[in-house]
Amino acid sequence: MTDTAPTTGEAACFEAGIKFGTLYHQFAGTPLSPHSAASIETAMEEAIENQPHCTDVTVEVQRDALEAELADSAADYTELTGRFLEVEIVVDYEGCEVVTRMAMEDGYPLMTVVSVRDADAN
Amino acid sequence: MTDTAPTTGEAACFEAGIKFGTLYHQFAGTPLSPHSAASIETAMEEAIENQPHCTDVTVEVQRDALEAELADSAADYTELTGRFLEVEIVVDYEGCEVVTRMAMEDGYPLMTVVSVRDADAN
Amino acid sequence: MTDTAPTTGEAACFEAGIKFGTLYHQFAGTPLSPHSAASIETAMEEAIENQPHCTDVTVEVQRDALEAELADSAADYTELTGRFLEVEIVVDYEGCEVVTRMAMEDGYPLMTVVSVRDADAN
Amino acid sequence: MTDTAPTTGEAACFEAGIKFGTLYHQFAGTPLSPHSAASIETAMEEAIENQPHCTDVTVEVQRDALEAELADSAADYTELTGRFLEVEIVVDYEGCEVVTRMAMEDGYPLMTVVSVRDADAN
Repeated sequence: MTDTAPTTGEAACFEAGIKFGTLYHQFAGTPLSPHSAASIETAMEEAIENQPHCTDVTVEVQRDALEAELADSAADYTELTGRFLEVEIVVDYEGCEVVTRMAMEDGYPLMTVVSVRDADAN
Repeated sequence: MTDTAPTTGEAACFEAGIKFGTLYHQFAGTPLSPHSAASIETAMEEAIENQPHCTDVTVEVQRDALEAELADSAADYTELTGRFLEVEIVVDYEGCEVVTRMAMEDGYPLMTVVSVRDADAN
Repeated sequence: MTDTAPTTGEAACFEAGIKFGTLYHQFAGTPLSPHSAASIETAMEEAIENQPHCTDVTVEVQRDALEAELADSAADYTELTGRFLEVEIVVDYEGCEVVTRMAMEDGYPLMTVVSVRDADAN
Repeated sequence: MTDTAPTTGEAACFEAGIKFGTLYHQFAGTPLSPHSAASIETAMEEAIENQPHCTDVTVEVQRDALEAELADSAADYTELTGRFLEVEIVVDYEGCEVVTRMAMEDGYPLMTVVSVRDADAN
């Protein structure tokens, strides 16, 4: 058992994780309403796509969950948090493509690696 | 000299300050490029307009300052911070309209109250 | 009815609002547990006290609310949000002291001006 | 060339990346002075250590860089950003230990995987 430098796939997954942490913690807490949902989706996608090795970001604010929350509330807006989000982020790092996703699972916004495709592997 | 409850104008200015602190510290640090500038402007405006008593928000990413920063950099994006922003926020609190602004002054993103207009005053 | 420049009290309340918006939106979303509650309190206080005209900040993470939330959860941490916070911020702007507070009211973290004390007033 | 599920090492590196993105984008923009440097270090460490699979976080605010920035400034505080930070994060995911680090390189706060140690490998 020895320490080793990361493989290309490991480095690619590290990069994908950075994008997810960035997306979530940059924007969590943003005032959110049905009216502003589309603009924050676009801004989140374009902001994270600026980061190195990030080829595609798709953010979908869950309108049903948002409407349900507001129906129970005296306010007409709330704060952006994981239960209103589904996100897919694709990273391409030195020929290795990693697809990652965030969605609610058991009440927690779970971030997972869906697939790793290494162009150099056979 | 005694403590007093706030006037309507003071409460209105407090509300305007909240919006400015929110706007700045929610979005500072967002990855920013010329390509993503328009979408973050719209998202910031619509997010802050969700907050109570906020009637209008105008955000202008300073493209010249952004292009100048990137011309000196190896990267093709940077982080959103005050020197790339000019912002105007209008609050209407119980009939009192407060206009507030942020712009760079002496290298610091200065937030100021431009005017207070109280409908009840003569 | 005319637009006027802000009074000292109005400018002081604007400054206090900025501090509240900063505190809330800088730190909302931070991973929070009973173990880390004391360190985030201190960091929030000292960070905001750096800002101009801010003389005192007191942050109290509501341990009861936090423990109650975690008792209902599979996770052993959550995200910092308004329902876990009580905050007092004191601003002194050109001799005018403003005391402001945030606490939960009707399920919403309400920020209010408690008192304004202008040294120049009689 | 096919898509595959992530290896344990890849999943571990994804987790480590999440922690880095979280740390950076949660706290970037925080008002920072030499006085508040120690408290934000502790708060960042304890906040991120709350996250799953995160065994150790070390944050060092670079006092020299901070003092140099403030010597050139009219203000006595600035905003936390990558050039004031050195960070090490250790993740243990299903027996795989990943050591990751952030430090300035060519004017950019570079996040890298230092080593991956898989207990199951020989």
